[in-house]
Amino acid sequence: GSWNEPYFDLTMPRNITSLVGKSAYLGCRVKHLGNKTVAWIRHRDLHILTVGTYTYTTDQRFQTSYHRDIDEWTLQIKWAQQRDAGVYECQISTQPVRSYSVNLNIVHHHHHH
Amino acid sequence: GSWNEPYFDLTMPRNITSLVGKSAYLGCRVKHLGNKTVAWIRHRDLHILTVGTYTYTTDQRFQTSYHRDIDEWTLQIKWAQQRDAGVYECQISTQPVRSYSVNLNIVHHHHHH
Repeated sequence: GSWNEPYFDLTMPRNITSLVGKSAYLGCRVKHLGNKTVAWIRHRDLHILTVGTYTYTTDQRFQTSYHRDIDEWTLQIKWAQQRDAGVYECQISTQPVRSYSVNLNIVHHHHHH
Repeated sequence: GSWNEPYFDLTMPRNITSLVGKSAYLGCRVKHLGNKTVAWIRHRDLHILTVGTYTYTTDQRFQTSYHRDIDEWTLQIKWAQQRDAGVYECQISTQPVRSYSVNLNIVHHHHHH
């Protein structure tokens, strides 16, 4: 690829831990996106979740927001459940495709008495 | 799922053979799609190819056309090459996701003298 092709900010965390019942946020920062599109895919079942800012899945707990100032495409999973744990892939519509995987852990909140 | 949820026409071929340099056509027939969306994904690299009638990949050889009379979402791969061989998945945006996989073989044309 040439110098102005899209690329990932590789300093973004690849392992995220979130709480059951809360929102989980997975970040993907893409520089020089240009006219390409960012999508999020769940690896477990290869389910397309979001394409651009469009929520493809009918599970409306999934939502992408784009933060222009930091070039970040944030996948929000509302009311996270244990079954949401696993690998999620941020994919750029380049040819060949470019992917950035993030592992999500879901834990129960520990109450301290 | 209820009686009016989307479902695949399971009689569609799951193994397709096409010629190098020609267009390959992969068919996916979905009944009762309703407000759901059909996408095509390449298994090799989990690349999203098309979403609805929108070509997500920047490889413009890929195109989906919808044939309303037979409820078919046809993936066309123009100028098919050997590297296009493999498994393609037709995915409906239901929750849980529903998928139909098609295996594509690419062969050279045999000239008979």
